[in-house]
Amino acid sequence: MTPHTTTSVGAEIYALARDIYPICRSITGDGVRQTLQVLKRHAPIKTHEIASGTSVFDWTVPREWIIREAYIAASDGTRVVDFRNHTLHVLNYSAPIRQHMTLAELKPHLHTLPDDPDLIPYRTSYYEERWGFCITQTQKDALPNDTYEVVVDSEFKNGALTWGEYLHQGKSDDEVLLTAHICHPSLANDNCSGLALLTRLCAALCRRSTKLSYRFLFAPGTIGAISWLAQNEHRVDRVKHGLVLSCVGDGGGPIYKQSRRGDAIIDRAMAHVISHSGLPGRVVPFSPYGYDERQFGSPAFDMPVGLFQRSAFGTFREYHTSADNLDFIAPDHLAISYDIVSQAIDILEGNNVFINLNPKCEPQLGRRGLYGTIGGDKDAPKRSMAMLWVLNLSDGNHTLLDIAERADLPFSVIAQAGEKLLSAGLLAEAETPSGRT
Amino acid sequence: MTPHTTTSVGAEIYALARDIYPICRSITGDGVRQTLQVLKRHAPIKTHEIASGTSVFDWTVPREWIIREAYIAASDGTRVVDFRNHTLHVLNYSAPIRQHMTLAELKPHLHTLPDDPDLIPYRTSYYEERWGFCITQTQKDALPNDTYEVVVDSEFKNGALTWGEYLHQGKSDDEVLLTAHICHPSLANDNCSGLALLTRLCAALCRRSTKLSYRFLFAPGTIGAISWLAQNEHRVDRVKHGLVLSCVGDGGGPIYKQSRRGDAIIDRAMAHVISHSGLPGRVVPFSPYGYDERQFGSPAFDMPVGLFQRSAFGTFREYHTSADNLDFIAPDHLAISYDIVSQAIDILEGNNVFINLNPKCEPQLGRRGLYGTIGGDKDAPKRSMAMLWVLNLSDGNHTLLDIAERADLPFSVIAQAGEKLLSAGLLAEAETPSGRT
Amino acid sequence: MTPHTTTSVGAEIYALARDIYPICRSITGDGVRQTLQVLKRHAPIKTHEIASGTSVFDWTVPREWIIREAYIAASDGTRVVDFRNHTLHVLNYSAPIRQHMTLAELKPHLHTLPDDPDLIPYRTSYYEERWGFCITQTQKDALPNDTYEVVVDSEFKNGALTWGEYLHQGKSDDEVLLTAHICHPSLANDNCSGLALLTRLCAALCRRSTKLSYRFLFAPGTIGAISWLAQNEHRVDRVKHGLVLSCVGDGGGPIYKQSRRGDAIIDRAMAHVISHSGLPGRVVPFSPYGYDERQFGSPAFDMPVGLFQRSAFGTFREYHTSADNLDFIAPDHLAISYDIVSQAIDILEGNNVFINLNPKCEPQLGRRGLYGTIGGDKDAPKRSMAMLWVLNLSDGNHTLLDIAERADLPFSVIAQAGEKLLSAGLLAEAETPSGRT
Repeated sequence: MTPHTTTSVGAEIYALARDIYPICRSITGDGVRQTLQVLKRHAPIKTHEIASGTSVFDWTVPREWIIREAYIAASDGTRVVDFRNHTLHVLNYSAPIRQHMTLAELKPHLHTLPDDPDLIPYRTSYYEERWGFCITQTQKDALPNDTYEVVVDSEFKNGALTWGEYLHQGKSDDEVLLTAHICHPSLANDNCSGLALLTRLCAALCRRSTKLSYRFLFAPGTIGAISWLAQNEHRVDRVKHGLVLSCVGDGGGPIYKQSRRGDAIIDRAMAHVISHSGLPGRVVPFSPYGYDERQFGSPAFDMPVGLFQRSAFGTFREYHTSADNLDFIAPDHLAISYDIVSQAIDILEGNNVFINLNPKCEPQLGRRGLYGTIGGDKDAPKRSMAMLWVLNLSDGNHTLLDIAERADLPFSVIAQAGEKLLSAGLLAEAETPSGRT
Repeated sequence: MTPHTTTSVGAEIYALARDIYPICRSITGDGVRQTLQVLKRHAPIKTHEIASGTSVFDWTVPREWIIREAYIAASDGTRVVDFRNHTLHVLNYSAPIRQHMTLAELKPHLHTLPDDPDLIPYRTSYYEERWGFCITQTQKDALPNDTYEVVVDSEFKNGALTWGEYLHQGKSDDEVLLTAHICHPSLANDNCSGLALLTRLCAALCRRSTKLSYRFLFAPGTIGAISWLAQNEHRVDRVKHGLVLSCVGDGGGPIYKQSRRGDAIIDRAMAHVISHSGLPGRVVPFSPYGYDERQFGSPAFDMPVGLFQRSAFGTFREYHTSADNLDFIAPDHLAISYDIVSQAIDILEGNNVFINLNPKCEPQLGRRGLYGTIGGDKDAPKRSMAMLWVLNLSDGNHTLLDIAERADLPFSVIAQAGEKLLSAGLLAEAETPSGRT
Repeated sequence: MTPHTTTSVGAEIYALARDIYPICRSITGDGVRQTLQVLKRHAPIKTHEIASGTSVFDWTVPREWIIREAYIAASDGTRVVDFRNHTLHVLNYSAPIRQHMTLAELKPHLHTLPDDPDLIPYRTSYYEERWGFCITQTQKDALPNDTYEVVVDSEFKNGALTWGEYLHQGKSDDEVLLTAHICHPSLANDNCSGLALLTRLCAALCRRSTKLSYRFLFAPGTIGAISWLAQNEHRVDRVKHGLVLSCVGDGGGPIYKQSRRGDAIIDRAMAHVISHSGLPGRVVPFSPYGYDERQFGSPAFDMPVGLFQRSAFGTFREYHTSADNLDFIAPDHLAISYDIVSQAIDILEGNNVFINLNPKCEPQLGRRGLYGTIGGDKDAPKRSMAMLWVLNLSDGNHTLLDIAERADLPFSVIAQAGEKLLSAGLLAEAETPSGRT
C-alpha cells in the first residue's frame, strides 16, 4: 500500500508523538493537561474537567495524582533508580513514600520482567493504594545489599479528571466519534501514536466541509470514557460511527476489531479498506476486553465503535515496556495508519445512493465517451467495470459501499465512477435511506 | 477430556451393560421384558405394553416372538450351531422350523459375512416370515456334507409390544425426551451401552430437583417409537428437547446428528459440548435414516430430537456383528459419553437469561473483588473474560448459551460467571423469553 | 458425465454449427437473415425486424451493414488478404474504402495479435465509423513495401435489425427465456455452438407438452437484446427463468454465471445440475459484464436470467480469433452442454411440491414393496434414501429441488422417488406455493 497522503503526514505525526512521549501521564493529573497543551498547538482541542469524587455510573472520579519526583538512592547518595530518567520507573499512580529501608524490604516493591530482563515494565495501581518502582531485572539483580533511601514524592488530592475534546460540525448532526486514550506515560505506540494521529486528523478535518460531524476525544482509558459517557449520555444516539485508535505506529496488522454490532457501517468500511490495502491485515470480532470500545459497546449504549490498531495490544514484545519507545514507531507506519482511517472516513462521507436514470438496459456509454478507450491506461478496465456496477446496482437499494463490496473494487474507484456518471447525467442523487449510510 | 463425573460412573454403566448383554431381545417378546427387569433394579422404570394387532399410524403392532431354542445338529447328534452359545445365531424374529435337510438345502438359510469370515452377523426378518441362522463364514465353509437336524423352536403369538418409560417431573411440564432402543440382542455397543447409560442417567436425575421434566424411554426401534408416538400424540408438544442414544460405549467420535430442525437448542447444546470436549468429535446434519430420530423427526412431529453416538452406526467393523461384544465397549468411553450428555443437560437446565443491572459502561469489578487477582489460578483470565462477556451480553436478548457460543468459552465457565455476578448483585434473573431456552 | 441423451444429439448440433459457421454475421444485415434461414430448417423460428433509426431505450437501431467483398491486392494484382477466405479478415461493420496506398498508409488499419502471430483476431467497430482488416501478425510482417489496392465494398443503409424468435406455449403463460447471440461471424464456439444447441432444443421442446412456456431468442448481442426488450417490455414479467447460451461447444467448465438475483430458481437449478455432473464445473456470481444477461439484469428488469458456458468468455486462447473454428468444438462437448441445459429444464418442469399423506412417523414402505430389496441394484440405497427424504420433507414447504439440495441427491432421483410415492398413494400433489417453483 502506498500512502496517498503526502509522506510528510507521517513525519508530522511522528514529530508530535515524539513531543508528547516524555510526559508522565496517568488517569488524572498534570500529565494529561501538559499533553493537551502540546496537542492544542496543532488542533482546536478544548480541555474538559470533571471533579474528583463525582459519580459516573458505577464508578467515582478518582483524585488527582501529583508526582514530583521518585528515586531510590544508595547509602552513598547515588540515585540508582530515578523517575527523571524514565516515567515508567515509578509505579503509575503510586502512593507517596519517603523512607530508608534494606534491600529485602525494598524488593517486594520492585516490578520487573524476569523473562525480558533488560526492559522496564509499565505497571499501574489505580484502584488499590500502594507504592512501587519498575526497573529492569538486570538492574534489580545488580542491587547490592545496602540501606536505600526510597522516595516517591507523590500526592493524591481532590481535583479533576481531564480530557480533550473537539467537535467539528458537519452538515448533519450525525457524529463520528474518534478517540484515543491519553493516560499512558512514555509508551510511544500505546498511545502517543494514537494521540498524534488523531490530532493530525482533527487538524485536517477542521479545514474541510464535511457531511457528518466529527467528535475528537482524547480521554484517559476506562474512567475517562466512562466520565465522558456519563456527561454525554443524552447525545450518545448521535454517534453513528466511531473508532478507537491505539498502537497505530508500528508495522504490524492493520487490525480492525469490530464494534459489538459486528455489521455497523464502520465495521464494513474498515473491513473494506483493510481488504483493499494490500497489507496482511485482518478483522477480528468484538470482545468485551481491550480499549474503550468496551465502554462504548456496553449493553445500554451498544455504539457502533470499533478499534483500529496495527499490532494488537498484548501480542507484541514491546507492549507495556520501555521498548515501546520512539524507535518502535515510524513515520511510514503512521502514514499508512492515517491513510486507512482517512479512507474509512472517505467512505462514511461518500457513501451515497444514486438512481440510474436509464434503468432499462445499459445506457450507451460509448457515445458519451465513457467506455474505456483511453490507450495505455491500465486502470481503464477497472474503471469501466466500476461504471457498469454503479449503473447496475443504482436502483435505490444500494449504497456505494454496498456496490464496492459486491463489485470487489475499492470504494474510491466506485465513488469516482459514480461522480463521472452523475456528471454525464446518467445518475441522480437519491434521498439516503435512513440508517443505510 | 477428563470426565468430571466420578470414574465409578463408567464402571457402573459398564456393569449394567454386561448384565443385559446375554439377553436375546427382539422387537417384541420376553427379551425386552427381561431387560427391563434388570434395568428396574437401578431406576424407577415402568413397563408399558400395547397389544399385538393395534394400529399405530401406518403400522400394526406385530405379534410376540417367543424363542425357546434353535440349533443345527449333525447326523451324529452334535450341535454344530446353537443359539445357547450366541443370541445372534438365530435370525432375529425367525419363523419356526423343525426338519432334517441336506447341507445344500440348509445353505440358503445360513447368513454369514464373507468379507469378515470369523464374525457372526446380526440379521433380522421382522416383516417377512422366514427362518434362518447366522454363523461365521469359517464355520459355514467347514460344514461337511451331511443330513442336519434344523430346529428353530420359536412361536408367534398375539401378545404385546413392551417398552420401559419413566417421567421425572421437574418444575416445568416442558420435557426432555431421552431414549434408547431396546430391540437388539447381544450387541454391546448397539445398544446395551445406550440402555445402560440411560438407566444410570435416569437414576441420577431422579435424585435431583430439575427445572425441566425428563422422560426416559426404552423402546424397540422403529415400531416401539411409533407405538409410543401413537399413544402420546397429544403430549408431543411438551417435548422441547430430545436425544436418542445409541453406540455410546466405544472410543470413537463423539458424533451428534442434528434434529430435523438443525437449530434447536439441543442441536446447539450438543455442538457446544462436543466442540469444548477436546475430543475429535463432529456434528452431522439430520438425515431421515438412522435410529428413532427418523420417527420423532417425521414431518407432522418435527420434534427437536437429535442422535448421540460415539462411532456412527454402519461405519465401524464391529457394527451388527458378534464383534460388538463386551470387549468393544469400555468404562472410560461410557464415562465420557455420560459426561457429554450430562453437560448438555446442564445447559438445558441452566440456560438462563440475566439482565445486567449496570448496563451503562462496565461496573467496577475491582472494588467487588471480582477482577482476577487470585494468584496462580490459571483459569482466572478465562473467568474474568467470562464475567465481561456475561455483563456485556446480558441485555435480555441473550441466553447463557448464546453468550457461551459468542465468547467461545465453555458453558460451565459462563454459567459460573453468571452465578458470581448474580451473587454480587450485578445481574437480575430475567423472565425467560418463550422458546429461547 | 455420460450424456443421457442419444449421442446423435451432439452430432446433430455439431452439423448445424458447421452449416452456419461460414456466414459473415454482424449486428445487422444479411448474415443474420441467412443464418436464420438455416436454423429454420430445424425449428419453427420466426424472423422479426426492427427498422434502422428506431429508438430503443437509450440506443438507436443502427443501419444495416452490407458487405460484398473486401481484399488487399498487391501491385501485381495478387490478393494478399481476401474476405472470401475468412469472414474475420474484414473489420466487422467496416466502412467502405477503395483506394491505392503504401504499406505505411495501410498498416494502421491492419489488426493483428502480436502475441499469437498465426491467429486472425476478431475486431468490430460498430459505433465508430472506420475501416480495417484483421490478419495474422506473421502475414503482416511478411508484407513487402508496395502500393496496395485496398477494397472494402461495404455499405450502410437504412434497413432493419433482424432477430429470430419462437414461443412454445406451455400450460402456463410463465415463460422460460432461452437465448443465444447471432451477431458473431465465423467463430464456432462463440456462438455457432449456442445457436445450434438452442435450435436443437427448440425442435425438441416443440414436440413436448410442457408446463411452462419457452421463448427462444436468436438476437444480435447487446443491441438485439435491447431491441427485443424495448418491444416486449410489457411482457417481461412473464419470464420466470432464463438462460443465455454461448460458447457451449468446447470441453471446458461447465460454468454457470448467476442471474443478478443470485438465488433465482434457475440459479439453483443450474448449480444443482453442475454439482451432480461429475465435471469440474463451477458457479460464478453475476457481474454486469458479459453477454446479454447484462441487459436482462439491468436494474429496471432484474430478470432471473443466467449465462451458461463451457469455457468462460475471454479466458481461452481461441476466444475471438480464427482458432475458434470447427476443430475447437466437438459433438461430445455439445451433447454434454445440451444435457446440462435439458436437466435444468427438467427441474423447472418438475419442481413440484408434494404432501406426505402419512406425515406421522414413516409409512411402512416394506409392505408396499418400496423398501430396497432389489438385489444387485447398486442405485437401490440411493433410491431408498430419496424416498425417505421426499417423505420427510413433503410437508408443503419444500419443492423437490429444495429436497434434492438438502438430500444432496440428483434431482432426477428425487423426482423419480416422488413419482413412485405418488403412485403408491403416499403423496398428494400440492398447490404450488406462488413463486417457489
